[in-house]
Amino acid sequence: MATQTLKGFRDFLPAQMAVRNRVKRILTDVFESCGFEPLSTPDLEYAEVLLGKYGPEADKLVYTFQDKGERMVGMPYDLTVPTARVAAQYSQELPQPFKRYQIQKVHRAENTQKGRYRELEQCDVDILNTTSPLADAEIISIMARAMSRLNIPNFQIVINSRPLLYAIFAQAGISEDKLKETAISIDKLDKLSVEEVKTELVNQRGISAESVEKLFEIFSQLESQYKDGESFIESTEFSISGITQELQSLQEIAKLAVRLGVEPNQIMPRFSLARGLDYYTGIIFEIISPDFPGSLGGGGRYDNLIESLGGPSWPAVGMAFGLDRICDVLEELKIWQDIPSTPTQILITVFSPDLLDESLKVTKLLRDSGVNAEVYLEADAKLDKQLKFADKKQIPWVAILGPEELKEEKLILKNLKAGTQETMLIIDLPHKIR
Amino acid sequence: MATQTLKGFRDFLPAQMAVRNRVKRILTDVFESCGFEPLSTPDLEYAEVLLGKYGPEADKLVYTFQDKGERMVGMPYDLTVPTARVAAQYSQELPQPFKRYQIQKVHRAENTQKGRYRELEQCDVDILNTTSPLADAEIISIMARAMSRLNIPNFQIVINSRPLLYAIFAQAGISEDKLKETAISIDKLDKLSVEEVKTELVNQRGISAESVEKLFEIFSQLESQYKDGESFIESTEFSISGITQELQSLQEIAKLAVRLGVEPNQIMPRFSLARGLDYYTGIIFEIISPDFPGSLGGGGRYDNLIESLGGPSWPAVGMAFGLDRICDVLEELKIWQDIPSTPTQILITVFSPDLLDESLKVTKLLRDSGVNAEVYLEADAKLDKQLKFADKKQIPWVAILGPEELKEEKLILKNLKAGTQETMLIIDLPHKIR
Repeated sequence: MATQTLKGFRDFLPAQMAVRNRVKRILTDVFESCGFEPLSTPDLEYAEVLLGKYGPEADKLVYTFQDKGERMVGMPYDLTVPTARVAAQYSQELPQPFKRYQIQKVHRAENTQKGRYRELEQCDVDILNTTSPLADAEIISIMARAMSRLNIPNFQIVINSRPLLYAIFAQAGISEDKLKETAISIDKLDKLSVEEVKTELVNQRGISAESVEKLFEIFSQLESQYKDGESFIESTEFSISGITQELQSLQEIAKLAVRLGVEPNQIMPRFSLARGLDYYTGIIFEIISPDFPGSLGGGGRYDNLIESLGGPSWPAVGMAFGLDRICDVLEELKIWQDIPSTPTQILITVFSPDLLDESLKVTKLLRDSGVNAEVYLEADAKLDKQLKFADKKQIPWVAILGPEELKEEKLILKNLKAGTQETMLIIDLPHKIR
Repeated sequence: MATQTLKGFRDFLPAQMAVRNRVKRILTDVFESCGFEPLSTPDLEYAEVLLGKYGPEADKLVYTFQDKGERMVGMPYDLTVPTARVAAQYSQELPQPFKRYQIQKVHRAENTQKGRYRELEQCDVDILNTTSPLADAEIISIMARAMSRLNIPNFQIVINSRPLLYAIFAQAGISEDKLKETAISIDKLDKLSVEEVKTELVNQRGISAESVEKLFEIFSQLESQYKDGESFIESTEFSISGITQELQSLQEIAKLAVRLGVEPNQIMPRFSLARGLDYYTGIIFEIISPDFPGSLGGGGRYDNLIESLGGPSWPAVGMAFGLDRICDVLEELKIWQDIPSTPTQILITVFSPDLLDESLKVTKLLRDSGVNAEVYLEADAKLDKQLKFADKKQIPWVAILGPEELKEEKLILKNLKAGTQETMLIIDLPHKIR
């Protein structure tokens, strides 16, 4: 038997699962606290639902095959396309706007270099069928709430908008037919140097050197003027001609997000933010942590995507958290070192076979009281072996029920980490552990 | 675009997800309260990991295909095989015994007649690498805990053991080489009549009519003697020669399960219980509800399976709850009618655009207090439209912040279901909703 997982696919053992489950529970709580509803879609779809939606590059990464009924089927590459199908299929039944969250694995036959995975878990949150700026602000506030609840330090929500970016391009004299490809080059600013991007714009995109200089001048001017979220949000007038309206629209959303609880300086305008994908039509955003390269999640407004995916013509805004990336960051930043690697709070040892019943009684008492309690599963194991088992599993507490203690309805409670122990009444144990 | 799911695959909209998520949370709580640890394995494995493990019939139902790297891969048919691979791969790292639970989708290219699904969600709980009867009792106690917590009425845990069944067969004069195939026919007793099974035993299995009569006599004798769990568990001697030891072993496990909190009459010995799969070597069990045909879950001891699947030689016991079946039963029995179809507890309406800020402030206050609160996403919608939205989503509470109430730092709180309303201080709202 191959005792291997496929390249890019991973097992998650209990200690890793403890972190993943806590992250998912926090995200679920945040999503539900903001009125989002859960949705789930299948792990296989008709291939025609999935293919031809993101262009030939992404299509190549979709796992497709012919099933035993000779249907071409595929594993979803993301959660947006299946959601577009759901919107098309149930448009009459769904509330409008439809605020849904979806936490599921997706699969991509990616090059696995650089720690990229072929099996990813995504946590999507989207609002379908509204153009309200309040919906955009809601998504930003969810990002901030989630990062705070996850204890990610110094996170920032970097914002920009596609209309603003295109207006800046126009101010620099870039013609309308080159807006999208200019954005693709600008998107590389977090990987390439400014000089490299400038060269690409001139040589590959055919933008005049003059326009490129003008473009970066505007970026510099904006960035020196609005150094942080506060200066942007509190600005009362915008002085760069040709982009005033776009700046105001972006500011309006940021202001609404602040009303919903985001600290002004958790927001960071970055006027050169472009995001790679083609389909954004309004605000775009990413969560970054200065301690870690890359983003923890991102998204934006996509008013035409659902329709282009075959759904109804529902304008929408949303974002995806990458669970795998978030867990990598939590590990890297050594946050959550305190998270127990086992859910078990206490091991009830078995002193001897004739005292097994007493151990089972205490186990039941604890479980009925909501304590996660494990009883050692052999009635005749040496105590030392039982303690080693608790130690290996990193169970914090161990109870020992010897004949002397039992006479007084007591037990010995050991704390393995602290190396302490005490004798106490059995009846007080659930309260002590909880 | 095909606006369809594949046959046997399902979307779960928010109201269904509410039920599924609650069931999963309850099962997770029960598993963790008993010291089981979470495990997750990939949705794709090397095909050779999956195939050839359950015989040609099940092999046909595995979704397999060649990936873009020309590897033969497959989607797991169950969670036991991937767990056997994990046991082989990490045997040095894992605690022993290894108590793991796993809640994941599996895929089977089944005939979809009779409400069978091709995408199933299984909730497995197993104890690997122990032969202790206490482990068997632990699994039984988990079944009872889970059913009680799920409010499934009148459930019973039907128990038997393969050694006992084979000893009964031997007493009836059935030769050793026919034990397994006799078990396969006996397993059909819940679908066929006694007469049909008798005929099959004689005609297809070649068992003598005399042996068949004797076999059913023993079943009758045992069943009249042990009508319920209590009479079985309290029996002090077993009077049928040749099967005493097997009866005692089964009784020992049942007794231990009672110590762990199972009511004696939640257990039901059924001496003709066989269970279809070949690999059981000890106790076998199923959860049944008299209100519903079929079982809600089942399992048993399988001491050779992990090794035969390519894992280490770890004896094991465990069971699987079928999430889809459990949800079908909850729907059928009309339990949990009260479960809210949306997580949102309250809709904060927006009275007019100039009062939007007040609505956002209250929304933030509620969310910060742990209330699931949704703000209406358009600032200029008519109140009537906003109320209809709350009604469609079945949000129980609606808050209205009009200028008159706001002057006194108050709002109007409506309960849509009860049709009542009251005017109250904004500051008292979080407490009221929680």
